[in-house]
Amino acid sequence: MLPKIGSFKFHIESYVCDFTEKATLTVMSRFLLDAASIHAQQRGFGYEQISKDNVAWVLSRLSIQIEEYPDHNQDLTVETWIETVSRFFTQRCFCFIDQSGKIIGYARTIWAAIDMQTRRPIDIPAWRPDMLQYVEPEKQCPIEKMSKIPMVDGVDPHMGYTVRYSDIDINKHMNSAKYIEHAINIFDLSIFKEKFIRKFEIVFLAEGLFGDKLKLYMQNLSENEYIIDTKKGEESVCRSRIIWK
Amino acid sequence: MLPKIGSFKFHIESYVCDFTEKATLTVMSRFLLDAASIHAQQRGFGYEQISKDNVAWVLSRLSIQIEEYPDHNQDLTVETWIETVSRFFTQRCFCFIDQSGKIIGYARTIWAAIDMQTRRPIDIPAWRPDMLQYVEPEKQCPIEKMSKIPMVDGVDPHMGYTVRYSDIDINKHMNSAKYIEHAINIFDLSIFKEKFIRKFEIVFLAEGLFGDKLKLYMQNLSENEYIIDTKKGEESVCRSRIIWK
Repeated sequence: MLPKIGSFKFHIESYVCDFTEKATLTVMSRFLLDAASIHAQQRGFGYEQISKDNVAWVLSRLSIQIEEYPDHNQDLTVETWIETVSRFFTQRCFCFIDQSGKIIGYARTIWAAIDMQTRRPIDIPAWRPDMLQYVEPEKQCPIEKMSKIPMVDGVDPHMGYTVRYSDIDINKHMNSAKYIEHAINIFDLSIFKEKFIRKFEIVFLAEGLFGDKLKLYMQNLSENEYIIDTKKGEESVCRSRIIWK
Repeated sequence: MLPKIGSFKFHIESYVCDFTEKATLTVMSRFLLDAASIHAQQRGFGYEQISKDNVAWVLSRLSIQIEEYPDHNQDLTVETWIETVSRFFTQRCFCFIDQSGKIIGYARTIWAAIDMQTRRPIDIPAWRPDMLQYVEPEKQCPIEKMSKIPMVDGVDPHMGYTVRYSDIDINKHMNSAKYIEHAINIFDLSIFKEKFIRKFEIVFLAEGLFGDKLKLYMQNLSENEYIIDTKKGEESVCRSRIIWK
Protein backbone atom coordinates (compact mmCIF):
# COMPACT_ATOMS: atom_id res chain seq x y z
CA MET A 1 0.00 0.00 0.00
CA LEU A 2 1.25 3.45 -0.88
CA PRO A 3 1.80 5.91 1.98
CA LYS A 4 -1.24 7.93 2.99
CA ILE A 5 0.57 11.19 2.46
CA GLY A 6 1.76 11.95 -1.06
CA SER A 7 4.58 14.39 -1.69
CA PHE A 8 5.00 16.15 -5.04
CA LYS A 9 7.69 18.54 -6.16
CA PHE A 10 7.18 21.54 -8.46
CA HIS A 11 9.65 24.08 -9.79
CA ILE A 12 8.77 27.78 -9.83
CA GLU A 13 9.45 28.64 -13.47
CA SER A 14 9.34 32.30 -14.54
CA TYR A 15 6.03 31.76 -16.36
CA VAL A 16 4.22 30.92 -13.12
CA CYS A 17 5.36 34.13 -11.39
CA ASP A 18 3.84 37.58 -11.31
CA PHE A 19 5.75 40.86 -11.28
CA THR A 20 6.72 40.35 -7.62
CA GLU A 21 8.85 37.42 -8.86
CA LYS A 22 6.89 34.97 -6.75
CA ALA A 23 4.43 32.21 -7.68
CA THR A 24 0.85 33.44 -7.89
CA LEU A 25 -2.10 32.17 -5.87
CA THR A 26 -3.57 30.79 -9.09
CA VAL A 27 -0.46 28.72 -9.66
CA MET A 28 -0.41 27.47 -6.06
CA SER A 29 -3.98 26.28 -6.60
CA ARG A 30 -3.00 24.59 -9.87
CA PHE A 31 -0.21 22.80 -8.06
CA LEU A 32 -2.53 21.55 -5.36
CA LEU A 33 -5.10 20.36 -7.89
CA ASP A 34 -2.36 18.57 -9.77
CA ALA A 35 -1.01 16.98 -6.57
CA ALA A 36 -4.55 15.84 -5.64
CA SER A 37 -5.04 14.35 -9.06
CA ILE A 38 -1.78 12.39 -9.05
CA HIS A 39 -2.26 11.26 -5.42
CA ALA A 40 -5.73 9.87 -6.24
CA GLN A 41 -4.58 8.28 -9.48
CA GLN A 42 -1.67 6.50 -7.80
CA ARG A 43 -4.09 5.06 -5.24
CA GLY A 44 -6.65 3.83 -7.78
CA PHE A 45 -9.37 6.48 -7.57
CA GLY A 46 -8.15 9.10 -10.02
CA TYR A 47 -10.08 10.86 -12.74
CA GLU A 48 -9.52 8.23 -15.44
CA GLN A 49 -10.14 5.28 -13.14
CA ILE A 50 -13.45 6.52 -11.72
CA SER A 51 -14.69 7.76 -15.09
CA LYS A 52 -15.06 4.07 -16.00
CA ASP A 53 -17.78 3.99 -13.30
CA ASN A 54 -19.24 7.18 -14.80
CA VAL A 55 -18.21 9.07 -11.69
CA ALA A 56 -16.27 12.33 -11.43
CA TRP A 57 -14.71 14.20 -8.53
CA VAL A 58 -16.18 17.67 -8.20
CA LEU A 59 -14.44 20.33 -6.14
CA SER A 60 -16.93 21.92 -3.80
CA ARG A 61 -14.76 24.15 -1.61
CA LEU A 62 -11.16 25.26 -1.39
CA SER A 63 -9.50 27.17 1.41
CA ILE A 64 -5.87 28.13 1.08
CA GLN A 65 -3.67 30.07 3.46
CA ILE A 66 -0.17 31.13 2.50
CA GLU A 67 2.29 33.00 4.71
CA GLU A 68 4.98 33.37 2.06
CA TYR A 69 4.78 32.67 -1.67
CA PRO A 70 7.68 30.72 -3.16
CA ASP A 71 10.27 32.66 -5.18
CA HIS A 72 11.15 32.27 -8.83
CA ASN A 73 13.55 29.39 -9.51
CA GLN A 74 12.86 27.67 -6.20
CA ASP A 75 11.41 24.21 -5.66
CA LEU A 76 8.10 23.76 -3.92
CA THR A 77 6.86 20.55 -2.33
CA VAL A 78 3.14 19.93 -2.02
CA GLU A 79 2.08 17.26 0.45
CA THR A 80 -1.48 16.00 0.23
CA TRP A 81 -3.60 13.55 2.18
CA ILE A 82 -7.23 12.60 2.77
CA GLU A 83 -8.41 13.94 6.10
CA THR A 84 -11.96 12.52 6.12
CA VAL A 85 -14.31 10.50 3.99
CA SER A 86 -17.95 10.98 4.92
CA ARG A 87 -21.10 9.94 3.13
CA PHE A 88 -21.18 12.58 0.41
CA PHE A 89 -17.93 14.47 0.87
CA THR A 90 -14.25 13.85 1.27
CA GLN A 91 -11.84 16.41 2.70
CA ARG A 92 -8.35 16.56 1.28
CA CYS A 93 -5.61 18.63 2.89
CA PHE A 94 -2.38 20.11 1.60
CA CYS A 95 0.82 21.44 3.05
CA PHE A 96 3.20 23.70 1.06
CA ILE A 97 6.89 23.38 1.87
CA ASP A 98 9.57 25.64 0.42
CA GLN A 99 13.04 24.63 -0.76
CA SER A 100 14.58 25.09 2.68
CA GLY A 101 12.02 22.74 4.25
CA LYS A 102 9.92 25.49 5.83
CA ILE A 103 6.14 25.14 5.83
CA ILE A 104 4.78 28.20 4.00
CA GLY A 105 1.10 27.36 3.82
CA TYR A 106 -1.81 24.96 4.04
CA ALA A 107 -4.97 24.23 2.13
CA ARG A 108 -8.14 22.22 2.65
CA THR A 109 -10.51 21.09 -0.10
CA ILE A 110 -13.91 19.41 -0.04
CA TRP A 111 -14.90 17.12 -2.89
CA ALA A 112 -18.06 15.30 -3.91
CA ALA A 113 -18.21 12.27 -6.18
CA ILE A 114 -20.88 12.87 -8.80
CA ASP A 115 -22.70 10.31 -10.92
CA MET A 116 -22.17 11.69 -14.43
CA GLN A 117 -25.53 10.44 -15.66
CA THR A 118 -27.84 11.50 -12.83
CA ARG A 119 -25.55 14.43 -11.75
CA ARG A 120 -26.28 13.36 -8.15
CA PRO A 121 -23.71 12.82 -5.39
CA ILE A 122 -22.62 9.29 -4.65
CA ASP A 123 -22.27 7.64 -1.24
CA ILE A 124 -18.45 7.58 -1.22
CA PRO A 125 -17.71 4.93 1.47
CA ALA A 126 -20.31 2.57 -0.02
CA TRP A 127 -18.96 3.04 -3.52
CA ARG A 128 -15.24 2.91 -2.72
CA PRO A 129 -14.61 1.42 0.75
CA ASP A 130 -10.95 1.01 -0.27
CA MET A 131 -10.51 4.78 0.01
CA LEU A 132 -10.95 4.57 3.80
CA GLN A 133 -7.59 2.86 4.28
CA TYR A 134 -5.91 6.04 3.01
CA VAL A 135 -7.60 8.37 5.48
CA GLU A 136 -4.95 10.15 7.55
CA PRO A 137 -6.70 11.81 10.53
CA GLU A 138 -3.54 12.48 12.54
CA LYS A 139 -1.64 14.96 10.37
CA GLN A 140 -2.55 18.51 11.29
CA CYS A 141 -3.88 21.01 8.80
CA PRO A 142 -4.10 24.18 10.91
CA ILE A 143 -6.49 26.12 8.76
CA GLU A 144 -9.92 27.04 10.05
CA LYS A 145 -12.94 25.30 8.55
CA MET A 146 -14.56 27.50 5.95
CA SER A 147 -17.33 29.76 7.01
CA LYS A 148 -20.28 30.67 4.84
CA ILE A 149 -19.45 33.15 2.10
CA PRO A 150 -22.33 35.60 1.74
CA MET A 151 -23.93 36.55 -1.58
CA VAL A 152 -23.09 39.94 -3.03
CA ASP A 153 -26.10 41.89 -4.19
CA GLY A 154 -25.37 44.39 -6.84
CA VAL A 155 -26.58 45.92 -10.01
CA ASP A 156 -23.36 46.86 -11.77
CA PRO A 157 -20.78 44.11 -12.00
CA HIS A 158 -17.17 45.13 -11.32
CA MET A 159 -15.91 42.89 -14.12
CA GLY A 160 -17.11 40.32 -16.59
CA TYR A 161 -15.64 37.60 -18.75
CA THR A 162 -16.75 34.97 -21.21
CA VAL A 163 -15.70 31.35 -20.65
CA ARG A 164 -13.27 30.55 -23.48
CA TYR A 165 -10.94 27.82 -24.75
CA SER A 166 -8.16 28.56 -22.27
CA ASP A 167 -10.64 28.22 -19.36
CA ILE A 168 -11.52 24.63 -20.29
CA ASP A 169 -9.22 22.01 -18.84
CA ILE A 170 -8.18 18.43 -19.38
CA ASN A 171 -11.46 17.28 -17.78
CA LYS A 172 -13.49 19.27 -20.34
CA HIS A 173 -14.89 21.62 -17.68
CA MET A 174 -14.01 25.10 -16.64
CA ASN A 175 -10.85 24.71 -14.61
CA SER A 176 -11.20 25.53 -10.91
CA ALA A 177 -7.94 27.49 -10.96
CA LYS A 178 -9.30 29.64 -13.81
CA TYR A 179 -12.22 30.82 -11.60
CA ILE A 180 -9.53 31.89 -9.13
CA GLU A 181 -7.41 33.60 -11.81
CA HIS A 182 -10.41 35.59 -13.06
CA ALA A 183 -11.61 36.47 -9.54
CA ILE A 184 -8.21 37.87 -8.55
CA ASN A 185 -8.10 39.87 -11.78
CA ILE A 186 -10.77 42.12 -10.28
CA PHE A 187 -8.08 43.90 -8.25
CA ASP A 188 -5.93 46.79 -9.40
CA LEU A 189 -2.24 46.06 -9.89
CA SER A 190 -1.32 48.52 -7.13
CA ILE A 191 -2.61 46.29 -4.31
CA PHE A 192 -0.28 43.47 -5.37
CA LYS A 193 2.67 45.83 -4.89
CA GLU A 194 1.85 46.41 -1.22
CA LYS A 195 0.09 43.26 -0.06
CA PHE A 196 -0.29 39.58 -0.76
CA ILE A 197 -3.29 37.27 -0.55
CA ARG A 198 -2.86 35.52 2.79
CA LYS A 199 -6.13 33.62 2.71
CA PHE A 200 -8.41 32.64 -0.12
CA GLU A 201 -11.63 30.66 0.17
CA ILE A 202 -13.89 29.66 -2.68
CA VAL A 203 -17.13 27.72 -2.84
CA PHE A 204 -18.26 26.27 -6.17
CA LEU A 205 -22.02 26.35 -6.65
CA ALA A 206 -22.70 25.81 -10.35
CA GLU A 207 -20.71 25.08 -13.43
CA GLY A 208 -19.39 27.60 -15.93
CA LEU A 209 -19.75 26.31 -19.48
CA PHE A 210 -18.00 27.34 -22.68
CA GLY A 211 -19.47 30.61 -23.93
CA ASP A 212 -21.07 31.59 -20.59
CA LYS A 213 -20.87 35.29 -19.87
CA LEU A 214 -19.96 35.56 -16.18
CA LYS A 215 -20.22 38.72 -14.09
CA LEU A 216 -18.20 39.45 -10.96
CA TYR A 217 -19.63 41.43 -8.05
CA MET A 218 -17.37 42.53 -5.22
CA GLN A 219 -18.02 43.63 -1.68
CA ASN A 220 -15.39 45.09 0.63
CA LEU A 221 -16.08 43.79 4.16
CA SER A 222 -13.12 45.38 5.93
CA GLU A 223 -9.81 46.93 4.97
CA ASN A 224 -8.30 43.63 3.88
CA GLU A 225 -11.33 41.40 3.34
CA TYR A 226 -13.30 41.12 0.12
CA ILE A 227 -16.10 38.88 -1.15
CA ILE A 228 -16.29 38.22 -4.87
CA ASP A 229 -19.45 36.68 -6.29
CA THR A 230 -19.16 35.21 -9.80
CA LYS A 231 -22.62 35.00 -11.34
CA LYS A 232 -24.26 33.62 -14.44
CA GLY A 233 -27.38 35.76 -14.68
CA GLU A 234 -28.82 35.79 -11.15
CA GLU A 235 -27.17 32.55 -10.11
CA SER A 236 -23.85 32.35 -8.24
CA VAL A 237 -21.38 30.10 -10.02
CA CYS A 238 -18.80 30.52 -7.27
CA ARG A 239 -18.15 32.86 -4.36
CA SER A 240 -14.78 33.69 -2.88
CA ARG A 241 -13.42 35.46 0.16
CA ILE A 242 -10.01 37.10 -0.11
CA ILE A 243 -7.97 38.29 2.85
CA TRP A 244 -4.94 40.46 2.08
CA LYS A 245 -1.96 40.99 4.30
CA MET B 1 32.41 28.56 -22.27
CA LEU B 2 28.97 27.02 -22.14
CA PRO B 3 27.75 25.14 -25.22
CA LYS B 4 26.03 27.28 -27.84
CA ILE B 5 22.92 25.15 -27.74
CA GLY B 6 21.03 25.01 -24.46
CA SER B 7 18.72 22.12 -23.65
CA PHE B 8 15.92 22.44 -21.10
CA LYS B 9 13.46 19.85 -19.89
CA PHE B 10 9.81 20.47 -19.00
CA HIS B 11 7.14 18.12 -17.73
CA ILE B 12 3.63 18.25 -19.17
CA GLU B 13 1.56 18.61 -16.00
CA SER B 14 -2.23 18.37 -16.23
CA TYR B 15 -2.61 22.11 -15.66
CA VAL B 16 -0.79 22.94 -18.90
CA CYS B 17 -3.08 20.72 -21.00
CA ASP B 18 -6.35 21.47 -22.72
CA PHE B 19 -9.28 19.07 -23.07
CA THR B 20 -7.43 17.11 -25.80
CA GLU B 21 -5.01 16.07 -23.01
CA LYS B 22 -2.10 17.69 -24.80
CA ALA B 23 -0.02 20.79 -24.00
CA THR B 24 -1.49 23.96 -25.50
CA LEU B 25 0.22 26.31 -27.96
CA THR B 26 0.26 28.94 -25.20
CA VAL B 27 2.19 26.61 -22.94
CA MET B 28 4.63 25.68 -25.69
CA SER B 29 5.32 29.39 -26.14
CA ARG B 30 5.78 29.83 -22.38
CA PHE B 31 8.28 26.98 -22.40
CA LEU B 32 10.25 28.55 -25.22
CA LEU B 33 10.29 31.97 -23.54
CA ASP B 34 11.47 30.32 -20.35
CA ALA B 35 14.18 28.37 -22.18
CA ALA B 36 15.33 31.58 -23.92
CA SER B 37 15.46 33.40 -20.61
CA ILE B 38 17.52 30.72 -18.84
CA HIS B 39 19.83 30.24 -21.85
CA ALA B 40 20.59 33.99 -21.95
CA GLN B 41 21.00 34.23 -18.19
CA GLN B 42 23.46 31.33 -18.06
CA ARG B 43 25.55 33.06 -20.73
CA GLY B 44 25.61 36.46 -19.04
CA PHE B 45 23.05 38.43 -21.02
CA GLY B 46 19.80 37.57 -19.25
CA TYR B 47 17.06 39.89 -18.11
CA GLU B 48 18.57 40.72 -14.73
CA GLN B 49 22.10 41.12 -16.04
CA ILE B 50 21.23 43.53 -18.87
CA SER B 51 18.78 45.51 -16.75
CA LYS B 52 21.87 46.83 -14.93
CA ASP B 53 22.73 48.53 -18.25
CA ASN B 54 19.13 49.77 -18.45
CA VAL B 55 18.55 47.46 -21.41
CA ALA B 56 15.75 44.97 -21.94
CA TRP B 57 15.15 42.25 -24.52
CA VAL B 58 11.94 42.86 -26.42
CA LEU B 59 10.32 40.09 -28.44
CA SER B 60 9.52 41.38 -31.90
CA ARG B 61 8.36 38.24 -33.73
CA LEU B 62 7.65 34.63 -32.99
CA SER B 63 6.99 31.84 -35.43
CA ILE B 64 6.21 28.37 -34.14
CA GLN B 65 5.41 25.22 -36.06
CA ILE B 66 4.33 22.07 -34.28
CA GLU B 67 3.55 18.74 -35.91
CA GLU B 68 2.43 17.00 -32.74
CA TYR B 69 1.73 18.49 -29.31
CA PRO B 70 3.20 16.62 -26.34
CA ASP B 71 0.85 14.48 -24.25
CA HIS B 72 -0.04 14.88 -20.59
CA ASN B 73 2.55 13.40 -18.25
CA GLN B 74 5.31 13.31 -20.85
CA ASP B 75 8.62 15.15 -20.77
CA LEU B 76 9.44 17.78 -23.35
CA THR B 77 12.92 19.03 -24.19
CA VAL B 78 13.35 22.52 -25.61
CA GLU B 79 16.64 23.24 -27.34
CA THR B 80 17.50 26.86 -28.02
CA TRP B 81 20.34 28.67 -29.73
CA ILE B 82 21.18 32.05 -31.26
CA GLU B 83 21.06 31.84 -35.05
CA THR B 84 22.14 35.38 -35.90
CA VAL B 85 23.11 38.64 -34.22
CA SER B 86 22.76 41.62 -36.51
CA ARG B 87 22.87 45.32 -35.73
CA PHE B 88 19.44 45.76 -34.21
CA PHE B 89 18.06 42.23 -34.02
CA THR B 90 19.02 38.79 -32.86
CA GLN B 91 17.32 35.63 -34.06
CA ARG B 92 16.90 32.81 -31.60
CA CYS B 93 15.73 29.36 -32.67
CA PHE B 94 14.11 26.48 -30.84
CA CYS B 95 13.59 22.79 -31.38
CA PHE B 96 10.94 20.79 -29.48
CA ILE B 97 11.78 17.16 -28.76
CA ASP B 98 9.35 14.69 -27.22
CA GLN B 99 10.09 12.03 -24.61
CA SER B 100 10.99 9.42 -27.24
CA GLY B 101 13.58 11.76 -28.79
CA LYS B 102 11.44 12.69 -31.79
CA ILE B 103 11.51 16.28 -33.05
CA ILE B 104 7.92 17.55 -32.89
CA GLY B 105 8.39 21.20 -33.80
CA TYR B 106 10.51 24.27 -34.29
CA ALA B 107 10.28 27.96 -33.53
CA ARG B 108 12.14 31.11 -34.49
CA THR B 109 12.04 34.39 -32.57
CA ILE B 110 13.39 37.84 -33.33
CA TRP B 111 14.44 40.11 -30.46
CA ALA B 112 15.56 43.72 -30.14
CA ALA B 113 17.57 45.15 -27.24
CA ILE B 114 15.88 48.34 -26.10
CA ASP B 115 17.38 51.17 -24.08
CA MET B 116 14.88 51.51 -21.24
CA GLN B 117 15.36 55.26 -20.98
CA THR B 118 15.25 56.33 -24.63
CA ARG B 119 13.06 53.32 -25.67
CA ARG B 120 15.30 53.06 -28.76
CA PRO B 121 16.96 49.89 -30.08
CA ILE B 122 20.59 49.31 -29.23
CA ASP B 123 23.36 48.22 -31.60
CA ILE B 124 23.69 44.68 -30.22
CA PRO B 125 27.17 43.63 -31.49
CA ALA B 126 28.67 46.97 -30.40
CA TRP B 127 27.05 46.71 -26.97
CA ARG B 128 27.71 43.03 -26.29
CA PRO B 129 30.39 41.64 -28.66
CA ASP B 130 30.64 38.65 -26.31
CA MET B 131 27.27 37.43 -27.58
CA LEU B 132 28.77 36.68 -31.00
CA GLN B 133 30.77 33.73 -29.68
CA TYR B 134 27.47 31.96 -28.94
CA VAL B 135 26.06 32.33 -32.46
CA GLU B 136 25.34 28.88 -33.88
CA PRO B 137 24.74 29.24 -37.64
CA GLU B 138 25.03 25.54 -38.49
CA LYS B 139 22.09 24.01 -36.66
CA GLN B 140 19.06 23.91 -38.92
CA CYS B 141 15.74 25.45 -37.98
CA PRO B 142 13.53 24.39 -40.90
CA ILE B 143 10.78 26.91 -40.46
CA GLU B 144 10.17 29.52 -43.13
CA LYS B 145 11.06 33.13 -42.35
CA MET B 146 7.98 35.05 -41.34
CA SER B 147 6.06 36.85 -44.00
CA LYS B 148 4.23 40.12 -43.42
CA ILE B 149 1.00 39.75 -41.48
CA PRO B 150 -1.61 42.08 -42.98
CA MET B 151 -3.79 44.42 -40.93
CA VAL B 152 -7.40 43.47 -40.41
CA ASP B 153 -9.84 46.27 -41.10
CA GLY B 154 -13.07 45.96 -39.29
CA VAL B 155 -15.70 47.80 -37.41
CA ASP B 156 -17.00 45.18 -35.01
CA PRO B 157 -14.35 43.35 -33.01
CA HIS B 158 -14.81 39.58 -32.61
CA MET B 159 -13.65 39.72 -29.03
CA GLY B 160 -12.22 42.11 -26.47
CA TYR B 161 -10.37 41.94 -23.19
CA THR B 162 -8.88 44.23 -20.60
CA VAL B 163 -5.24 43.74 -19.58
CA ARG B 164 -5.35 42.53 -15.97
CA TYR B 165 -3.11 41.29 -13.16
CA SER B 166 -2.73 37.77 -14.58
CA ASP B 167 -1.52 39.22 -17.91
CA ILE B 168 1.42 41.01 -16.28
CA ASP B 169 4.53 38.92 -15.92
CA ILE B 170 7.74 38.80 -13.93
CA ASN B 171 9.17 41.58 -16.16
CA LYS B 172 6.24 43.88 -15.27
CA HIS B 173 4.94 43.91 -18.85
CA MET B 174 2.12 42.10 -20.54
CA ASN B 175 3.44 38.60 -21.07
CA SER B 176 3.98 37.61 -24.70
CA ALA B 177 2.36 34.23 -24.09
CA LYS B 178 -0.76 35.97 -22.76
CA TYR B 179 -1.26 37.77 -26.10
CA ILE B 180 -1.19 34.31 -27.66
CA GLU B 181 -3.60 32.84 -25.06
CA HIS B 182 -6.11 35.64 -25.68
CA ALA B 183 -5.73 35.49 -29.48
CA ILE B 184 -6.45 31.75 -29.56
CA ASN B 185 -9.47 32.28 -27.31
CA ILE B 186 -11.21 33.88 -30.29
CA PHE B 187 -11.95 30.39 -31.67
CA ASP B 188 -14.91 28.22 -30.79
CA LEU B 189 -14.16 25.08 -28.80
CA SER B 190 -15.39 22.89 -31.67
CA ILE B 191 -12.40 23.62 -33.92
CA PHE B 192 -9.99 22.32 -31.26
CA LYS B 193 -11.83 18.99 -31.36
CA GLU B 194 -11.11 18.49 -35.05
CA LYS B 195 -7.87 20.34 -35.72
CA PHE B 196 -4.73 21.61 -34.10
CA ILE B 197 -2.70 24.77 -34.64
CA ARG B 198 0.17 23.66 -36.87
CA LYS B 199 1.67 27.08 -37.38
CA PHE B 200 1.42 30.28 -35.41
CA GLU B 201 3.15 33.55 -36.20
CA ILE B 202 2.92 36.74 -34.19
CA VAL B 203 4.45 40.16 -34.62
CA PHE B 204 4.52 42.54 -31.65
CA LEU B 205 4.02 46.18 -32.61
CA ALA B 206 3.15 48.07 -29.43
CA GLU B 207 2.85 47.33 -25.76
CA GLY B 208 -0.30 46.40 -23.89
CA LEU B 209 -0.39 48.10 -20.49
CA PHE B 210 -2.39 47.29 -17.37
CA GLY B 211 -5.98 48.43 -17.84
CA ASP B 212 -5.80 48.69 -21.64
CA LYS B 213 -8.96 47.58 -23.38
CA LEU B 214 -7.83 45.53 -26.36
CA LYS B 215 -10.04 44.51 -29.28
CA LEU B 216 -9.47 41.51 -31.54
CA TYR B 217 -10.36 41.55 -35.24
CA MET B 218 -10.21 38.35 -37.25
CA GLN B 219 -10.02 37.64 -40.96
CA ASN B 220 -10.37 34.18 -42.48
CA LEU B 221 -7.93 33.97 -45.42
CA SER B 222 -8.58 30.35 -46.42
CA GLU B 223 -10.15 27.26 -44.85
CA ASN B 224 -7.35 26.84 -42.33
CA GLU B 225 -5.69 30.25 -42.25
CA TYR B 226 -6.71 33.16 -40.03
CA ILE B 227 -5.26 36.58 -39.24
CA ILE B 228 -6.01 38.06 -35.82
CA ASP B 229 -5.28 41.71 -35.23
CA THR B 230 -5.15 42.84 -31.57
CA LYS B 231 -5.75 46.58 -31.40
CA LYS B 232 -5.70 49.34 -28.83
CA GLY B 233 -7.96 51.93 -30.43
CA GLU B 234 -6.84 52.14 -34.06
CA GLU B 235 -3.33 50.90 -33.37
CA SER B 236 -2.26 47.25 -33.74
CA VAL B 237 -0.64 45.93 -30.58
CA CYS B 238 0.14 42.60 -32.21
CA ARG B 239 -0.95 40.63 -35.26
CA SER B 240 -0.97 36.88 -35.61
CA ARG B 241 -1.43 34.31 -38.35
CA ILE B 242 -2.83 30.93 -37.40
CA ILE B 243 -2.74 27.88 -39.65
CA TRP B 244 -4.84 24.89 -38.55
CA LYS B 245 -4.34 21.31 -39.57
